[in-house]
Amino acid sequence: MDFEAFFKGELNSLHQEGRYRVFADLERHRGNFPRATRHTPEGKRDVTVWCSNDYLGMGQHPAVIAAMHEAIDHCGAGAGGTRNISGTTHYHVLLEQELADLHGKEAALIFTSGYVSNWATLGTLGAKIPGLIIFSDALNHASMIEGIRFGKCERVIWKHNDLDDLRAKLAAADPKAPKLIAFESVYSMDGDIAPIKEICDLADEFGAMTYLDEVHAVGMYGPRGGGIAEREGLMDRITIIEGTLGKAFGVMGGYITGSNAVCDFIRSFASGFIFTTAIPPALAAGAVASIRHLKNSPFERARHQDRVRKLRASLDARGIPHMMNPSHIVPVMVGDAAKCKWISDLLLDHSDIYVQPINYPTVPRKTERLRITPTPLHSDADIEHLVGALHQLWSRCALARAVA
Amino acid sequence: MDFEAFFKGELNSLHQEGRYRVFADLERHRGNFPRATRHTPEGKRDVTVWCSNDYLGMGQHPAVIAAMHEAIDHCGAGAGGTRNISGTTHYHVLLEQELADLHGKEAALIFTSGYVSNWATLGTLGAKIPGLIIFSDALNHASMIEGIRFGKCERVIWKHNDLDDLRAKLAAADPKAPKLIAFESVYSMDGDIAPIKEICDLADEFGAMTYLDEVHAVGMYGPRGGGIAEREGLMDRITIIEGTLGKAFGVMGGYITGSNAVCDFIRSFASGFIFTTAIPPALAAGAVASIRHLKNSPFERARHQDRVRKLRASLDARGIPHMMNPSHIVPVMVGDAAKCKWISDLLLDHSDIYVQPINYPTVPRKTERLRITPTPLHSDADIEHLVGALHQLWSRCALARAVA
Repeated sequence: MDFEAFFKGELNSLHQEGRYRVFADLERHRGNFPRATRHTPEGKRDVTVWCSNDYLGMGQHPAVIAAMHEAIDHCGAGAGGTRNISGTTHYHVLLEQELADLHGKEAALIFTSGYVSNWATLGTLGAKIPGLIIFSDALNHASMIEGIRFGKCERVIWKHNDLDDLRAKLAAADPKAPKLIAFESVYSMDGDIAPIKEICDLADEFGAMTYLDEVHAVGMYGPRGGGIAEREGLMDRITIIEGTLGKAFGVMGGYITGSNAVCDFIRSFASGFIFTTAIPPALAAGAVASIRHLKNSPFERARHQDRVRKLRASLDARGIPHMMNPSHIVPVMVGDAAKCKWISDLLLDHSDIYVQPINYPTVPRKTERLRITPTPLHSDADIEHLVGALHQLWSRCALARAVA
Repeated sequence: MDFEAFFKGELNSLHQEGRYRVFADLERHRGNFPRATRHTPEGKRDVTVWCSNDYLGMGQHPAVIAAMHEAIDHCGAGAGGTRNISGTTHYHVLLEQELADLHGKEAALIFTSGYVSNWATLGTLGAKIPGLIIFSDALNHASMIEGIRFGKCERVIWKHNDLDDLRAKLAAADPKAPKLIAFESVYSMDGDIAPIKEICDLADEFGAMTYLDEVHAVGMYGPRGGGIAEREGLMDRITIIEGTLGKAFGVMGGYITGSNAVCDFIRSFASGFIFTTAIPPALAAGAVASIRHLKNSPFERARHQDRVRKLRASLDARGIPHMMNPSHIVPVMVGDAAKCKWISDLLLDHSDIYVQPINYPTVPRKTERLRITPTPLHSDADIEHLVGALHQLWSRCALARAVA
């Protein structure tokens, strides 16, 4: 087989479909978020970033920066080993205490990423609990899907956020089989929110564990930034809450929280936790600073929601169609891969606005979109600039307007 | 099902087998490697670390530290997104160029860890190349095994480093099927090295791609730290060289290098690459500094090998049994999980020497060991202190001596 020819052929298909991905080469500026410098073959240009998952700008926060500097000066760059073999530093211990406290749980466990935390935890539960059936929301993230596949247990996909379908599927399963319901709070691409309480009620009724991915909610919702489950007073009803340090907390890494026993079980049996180098002490230190700040400061959350409202109102005033949802994610729908990329390129080249086009497999085909994420640091002028540019493009490209 | 009781029962089995893992809570000291402070419920004590995978102490190197500080000050803590959605910074671009150059390849691709790079790359090749058969060395790392399983392609396990077995299995397979041979250069737990040239010869004969994991070799072998394949002039014969930034380079992250087409293919199709937050700019910057330093400085490599020879000679002089191998990894064999943990505890509590016991599933049962990793920064006195303590324990515990 000519492997090179095979790879090139597959890449050509992506080009033809208009969904070949070109990464923007950016340099963010500390203290000047959401501004960044974009490197191109033709030179450098300053842009405004409108698609970052550093949702609150905490990756630029002085307390986070200072904590990282301090940890590097104190103990160096990397952790130097797996958590078991010399890679657990005191910063990791403190971070796990901080996370357990954030979610009101006995314990927490850090992973190298949110992806790995979902994959390793769901995979290990599926593989190790005899006869486990995992009931997985149809729109769960790739990392959850891969984890459930990895576990090789029985899986039942229930319709997205559909309680009737979940109930019917729980009722149809063997009453004696151990069960786990896996779902997210805020879904990344549509920005809708799960009916957590009702899912927990069903879990109680059918004796199921609950696994809740809060990666798009931690830091941003709840009085201390514990996520949607904290906001709704439901954290104690979730068996395992999973989160990330790489979005609103502004750093990198993933985690789970739960009882001592479940965290110790995953710690002891999950391949993806055991056989990998621990996150650097500086990342743990930065995350601790970020979590502590957001536990005590409601300012960023309030300003975040204000910016979201302002952007939505501004889009509505110009008839730019966006998907309504109760979260901070503002999807502006285009519905065509090539057109979506074209709009994104025009925004970047003509208006210095960076919004990456979102296409398949991240979202279903025909639902391609610009996924806009306002932060507390986007000004009124930034919003006016973005919506003005979209307005011009919508006219120029004869795109459908929203009905006023 | 009582899930809590199930988890506790599984953990009890680990305790009874003597392989329940207790993580040492350490604080390394920048500039004073391999010293660290160990936190215990009773207080703090200084220890000497003898089991770090920061093999060359580069996690403490001034150039690495300075590069990380600079990147944090310049652009903040985290990357703020996936590589595709705002998470590619100029530091990532530079790091991929540096890695491609290190291995003499057209391109490179960074992952969040070496684990993820193996898992995602092998899994994607297995899933996407129709009919691919992966020929996997029997002692390949957990991340490679999980990746190959994830790909759901046909896999053939060949006896560890056994060319006859590999040839027989290649010959027995369908001549028309696309094939990939996956192996490591330095095997982590035994420290032995693969016959890379002969494996490449077989790959040529049977038209197979080659996938080489060099995580325990990059930085440490070859005139520029390109690994065993560089030392032996074989880099151009390997289709994909995989490595880590978290061991000899002292930071965190994993990577592959290869042709433009293969890296672009993995970049475009690997779930574990696409759907995860990019590594922070500071880690990319630290890794670039580390790789550049080791490309030009043979000092650390020479001193590393000198320390390994010195330790081995000292162990031999006292009759402490260790597995001979041509690498820098010094496995002192114990062969019993409980005894191995007990020796490790005594070294820590009585001699302030930290060597984590290695037990199942990291190594097979009955081959439990102390895996000792000397670094350029361990002094003659450190070696004497370690071997003296082992000597006392060997007498006290009536452990078998090596035959002189």
